[in-house]
Amino acid sequence: MKTFAKLGLAAAAIALPSLGLAQDEAAAPAVVPTDVVFILNTLLFLVAGFLVFFMAAGFAMLEAGLVRSKNVAMQLTKNVVLFGVASIFYYLIGYNLMYPLGTWAVDGVLSGVFGPGVLEAVGVTAEAADDYGYASTGSDFFFQLMFCAATASIVSGTLAERIKLWPFLIFTVILTSVIYPITASWTWGGGFVGEAGFSDFAGSTIVHSVGGWAALTGAIILGPRLGRYTDGRVNAFPGSNLTLATLGTFILWLGWFGFNGGSQLAMGSVGDVADVSRIFANTNTAAAGGAVAAAILTQLMYKKVDLTMVLNGALAGLVSITAEPLAPSLGLATIIGMIGGILVVFSVPLLDKLKIDDVVGAIPVHLICGIWGTLAVVLTGTASIGDQLYGIVVIGAATVVASTVVWFILKAVMGIRVSEEDEIAGLDMAELGMEAYPEFSKG
Amino acid sequence: MKTFAKLGLAAAAIALPSLGLAQDEAAAPAVVPTDVVFILNTLLFLVAGFLVFFMAAGFAMLEAGLVRSKNVAMQLTKNVVLFGVASIFYYLIGYNLMYPLGTWAVDGVLSGVFGPGVLEAVGVTAEAADDYGYASTGSDFFFQLMFCAATASIVSGTLAERIKLWPFLIFTVILTSVIYPITASWTWGGGFVGEAGFSDFAGSTIVHSVGGWAALTGAIILGPRLGRYTDGRVNAFPGSNLTLATLGTFILWLGWFGFNGGSQLAMGSVGDVADVSRIFANTNTAAAGGAVAAAILTQLMYKKVDLTMVLNGALAGLVSITAEPLAPSLGLATIIGMIGGILVVFSVPLLDKLKIDDVVGAIPVHLICGIWGTLAVVLTGTASIGDQLYGIVVIGAATVVASTVVWFILKAVMGIRVSEEDEIAGLDMAELGMEAYPEFSKG
Amino acid sequence: MKTFAKLGLAAAAIALPSLGLAQDEAAAPAVVPTDVVFILNTLLFLVAGFLVFFMAAGFAMLEAGLVRSKNVAMQLTKNVVLFGVASIFYYLIGYNLMYPLGTWAVDGVLSGVFGPGVLEAVGVTAEAADDYGYASTGSDFFFQLMFCAATASIVSGTLAERIKLWPFLIFTVILTSVIYPITASWTWGGGFVGEAGFSDFAGSTIVHSVGGWAALTGAIILGPRLGRYTDGRVNAFPGSNLTLATLGTFILWLGWFGFNGGSQLAMGSVGDVADVSRIFANTNTAAAGGAVAAAILTQLMYKKVDLTMVLNGALAGLVSITAEPLAPSLGLATIIGMIGGILVVFSVPLLDKLKIDDVVGAIPVHLICGIWGTLAVVLTGTASIGDQLYGIVVIGAATVVASTVVWFILKAVMGIRVSEEDEIAGLDMAELGMEAYPEFSKG
Repeated sequence: MKTFAKLGLAAAAIALPSLGLAQDEAAAPAVVPTDVVFILNTLLFLVAGFLVFFMAAGFAMLEAGLVRSKNVAMQLTKNVVLFGVASIFYYLIGYNLMYPLGTWAVDGVLSGVFGPGVLEAVGVTAEAADDYGYASTGSDFFFQLMFCAATASIVSGTLAERIKLWPFLIFTVILTSVIYPITASWTWGGGFVGEAGFSDFAGSTIVHSVGGWAALTGAIILGPRLGRYTDGRVNAFPGSNLTLATLGTFILWLGWFGFNGGSQLAMGSVGDVADVSRIFANTNTAAAGGAVAAAILTQLMYKKVDLTMVLNGALAGLVSITAEPLAPSLGLATIIGMIGGILVVFSVPLLDKLKIDDVVGAIPVHLICGIWGTLAVVLTGTASIGDQLYGIVVIGAATVVASTVVWFILKAVMGIRVSEEDEIAGLDMAELGMEAYPEFSKG
Repeated sequence: MKTFAKLGLAAAAIALPSLGLAQDEAAAPAVVPTDVVFILNTLLFLVAGFLVFFMAAGFAMLEAGLVRSKNVAMQLTKNVVLFGVASIFYYLIGYNLMYPLGTWAVDGVLSGVFGPGVLEAVGVTAEAADDYGYASTGSDFFFQLMFCAATASIVSGTLAERIKLWPFLIFTVILTSVIYPITASWTWGGGFVGEAGFSDFAGSTIVHSVGGWAALTGAIILGPRLGRYTDGRVNAFPGSNLTLATLGTFILWLGWFGFNGGSQLAMGSVGDVADVSRIFANTNTAAAGGAVAAAILTQLMYKKVDLTMVLNGALAGLVSITAEPLAPSLGLATIIGMIGGILVVFSVPLLDKLKIDDVVGAIPVHLICGIWGTLAVVLTGTASIGDQLYGIVVIGAATVVASTVVWFILKAVMGIRVSEEDEIAGLDMAELGMEAYPEFSKG
Repeated sequence: MKTFAKLGLAAAAIALPSLGLAQDEAAAPAVVPTDVVFILNTLLFLVAGFLVFFMAAGFAMLEAGLVRSKNVAMQLTKNVVLFGVASIFYYLIGYNLMYPLGTWAVDGVLSGVFGPGVLEAVGVTAEAADDYGYASTGSDFFFQLMFCAATASIVSGTLAERIKLWPFLIFTVILTSVIYPITASWTWGGGFVGEAGFSDFAGSTIVHSVGGWAALTGAIILGPRLGRYTDGRVNAFPGSNLTLATLGTFILWLGWFGFNGGSQLAMGSVGDVADVSRIFANTNTAAAGGAVAAAILTQLMYKKVDLTMVLNGALAGLVSITAEPLAPSLGLATIIGMIGGILVVFSVPLLDKLKIDDVVGAIPVHLICGIWGTLAVVLTGTASIGDQLYGIVVIGAATVVASTVVWFILKAVMGIRVSEEDEIAGLDMAELGMEAYPEFSKG
């Protein structure tokens, strides 16, 4: 192996005498034993799951880097606690609502505290595994939970710098225990939208647009930040730390391999693992396309490359390929990502024209490109345009209605916006009594 | 797969005709071939090992974020070099002391430099593998090393901002080559504490409390930072960069999936991989519980959420579930984590009352919650309260005695504390002659 | 498992009755089924590939941390866009040039946009897989791409703070679509350098020195930064954020497990996975050796430990072990890494004496240690000194010639250096119109 390291596949096959030997002489069996299928599928969920978990750090860094320094500690607090809230409520309520297929539902809620709960028994035998031949229930729960939490993370960026902590967290409770699980179940839980032909492989609509719609309704009801739009002008509030915003983007990019690759839901066969490989390559190239397109376009439009647009362009490419990361060729995936990057560059100023204040650009990235990615499925013939529009509209409408109701109730009951003084002082000192960077004087 | 992506397990099994076919018609074998068991177990060590490796970055970011900016470069230096020192001395001495089971021990120390050392031969055959049927020795060494290094990382945070670099590194040499390996061998190396019934799945006591005890003895012998406790008041020294502290927490959370999941030590069977899945889900929910509990409790107690408490709450949840991440239900795991988060909120001010100055809160997180997590094993019936107390006391006493002796010798021989002027100037300029953030003026 | 968690391998084998049972009574087959070999090899490429992907974030953080704050946003922009450019052009041109072995080459370029492109068909059957018995083509492409992108990342650090954005990106296009693929194919693509006996397991020369030579030619043609060398003195331009430089180093260290481990190119047998384990352990210990050696040496030479040298020492250890991470013992790997760390400490001031301005130390780390690592292969008897020198010289000469030509053409056609005013103002405001840390006043 050493001498021929990275020889390329055709030659490598020749260079592997031991394998050839096994095939030729010992007649190794080809088929994957059922236990191994179970193990490999479970392993996919675990590896993909920890990658998607890490996206929570990516969202936190992206958002902390794009808000002003006086609101950084609050943004960090929201990101950590929303993940904790999502983890607990998706377990208590959401997972059961989304996949109401087993008898463990009742166990999970009522007797789960000291009983076996959602998970299979310790040291489960093949015969006793809930879904022997497929994968461990615990690994599936772990993986699904991370998607639910990602949905909530999308919302926090848009509403930064002005929303109160606790109303935001209560919204997260509703989003992760009810809104996301129910709308997601319509496709992934065997529900009517999926039955109708809607196709959304890893969640351009089901995760990203749902998060985007919830963010959009919140941004409209909450209103823009003080001083953001004055005398018809948009005042720039530059992000306080673009290094961390860049780090966040790279972490999200990394996590997306799990997000899309894990959504193959299996790697216990040659076809499945080759599909996961296609998905990894396509996911990467779509992000690359989005970043490069945004760089070129901002150079052409503004004579200067805009780093935050490049970052959002990469994320836009990722969201755009998420509805169908498997079927496209590398070339088509690159183009789908590039169009995502272009959409972001045009929709960020459009939102500002509408005086919808989206602090980190989550609505262009997750909602606009979520819709675009869902429509792009049609390019590969995987679904019809009608089916895709149906899913986009039904899931979007439900999310908008539910989110609006929840935001208005929260506004009426406890208020969702901090006071003017607190907003000017910054949420960190006002709501938390601490600063993210206490030693660095403000310029 | 596409249309029914994330359909839920029961339905997914129906939607997998190829698998069903394989089982029904071709009668695929169920059993995992022995070579595949070896490969999968090894793979678990490698993946879990690189996740635990990354915890070194997590500790570095957490600690760099929680010290004042004048001590950041020193804290980074300590974290990088301590990891290097741990890697080398655990190889040279520690691993052999901890697992003195094979003939490679002599090879490793005396002839390892140009010989095969600890590792199996290149391209080892199944017959020649040191532990055929189980896993590669090299992967086990890699995984175990990361636990040893984590123990040392715990100490550096507590003693920050006042300990000299080289005495700290010499302590690390003793800790990683002697103290940790010997105390760990009493349970994990087949020693008397494990024989007595003590149960510590992934090391609440063996890793975290040992690190915590070493930190505690150091903190007492070293004394508090200048100006920390004056006129009966505790003066707050806020961390200089909470964004990086948050990033560090997320990285540690990520690494903990490897820490606890890898401690299953096997995934070559349906039961083992399902157990690893349980562990991932329980580890996550315990961290979530700790973070949410700390957020609610600080809101109730101080009328403001405290971000650093939330971060330490998440870590507290993780430490608390580490002694038994497998047996609890999701609900119980959440509660164990929540209690960990609550313990941290109460024990941080308690330590200050005792004038024990722990810069990053490592003693509450790793020692207090390490003890709590070890006792929580009793809740699942895995061990008796007596067995657990026995292990906590024996391992704790040994660590305290050994650490105290080493700290006092270091203090007598070379001094462990920087001069007052150096401490006031900051260790970065005084000991390293450089600054972590040279361009940002201090407020 | 619980009670004996981490018992050590010999004892663990005893403690696994179910495995023993399977072997003794049920006579489990030992051999790995061919489908499973395919899946496991593919999985290695995917996991190693995402780890190497993350090195892009590592380079970005390292470089952003080591430049002055007025050039941080530009350095981030370069790192994100260069990765996008590398992804697209390695797909369009580079991969085909490097491995011109299959019929997909024409498909890839001409009909790939809406056709199957480089990747195997969706849900490929075992019979139809391009390289059944080995691994998925998509996973190989994904893994190889990351090496190409890493080569480009090396260049950006050296040339920071003075090179224009677009000429740099055009150089990246040439490097990733032509220079790297062709020089790499001479060894890894079955070409004449590999045929002659040159051995470079994971790319000390093929990746790191190539990047280093391209950086060196660029640095000479571009010239040093303004004010760097005045009146025979070297003026220090301290990095603006050592925390992020440290984070970048840890991320690179993490990614290197994929870089070297994945270069085994297989883990579908006991021998292969044990080799990957050796590689993980050796890679880690070489980095540890480099970091510790740099810490001790800077203490001895300058009476103060130099954090940036420690970071570059760790990276030097990693580069040094990359040409042969498999064959050395742990002890030899540590020594190889230590020598790398020592080389860096001596060659950084040497470059300054030559007035070659390398902002982040990439030439010492990647070029000098790349050469050293390639020569160190001789220590394990894997190749002769003559074969290694032949490869170093041929690949180095080709890279120097090609890079020089490209740099001069770019200089003549569009200019490669920013104006003096722009350099003094910082590239962020001058070329991008934004700042990385807009709120923090400069000291």
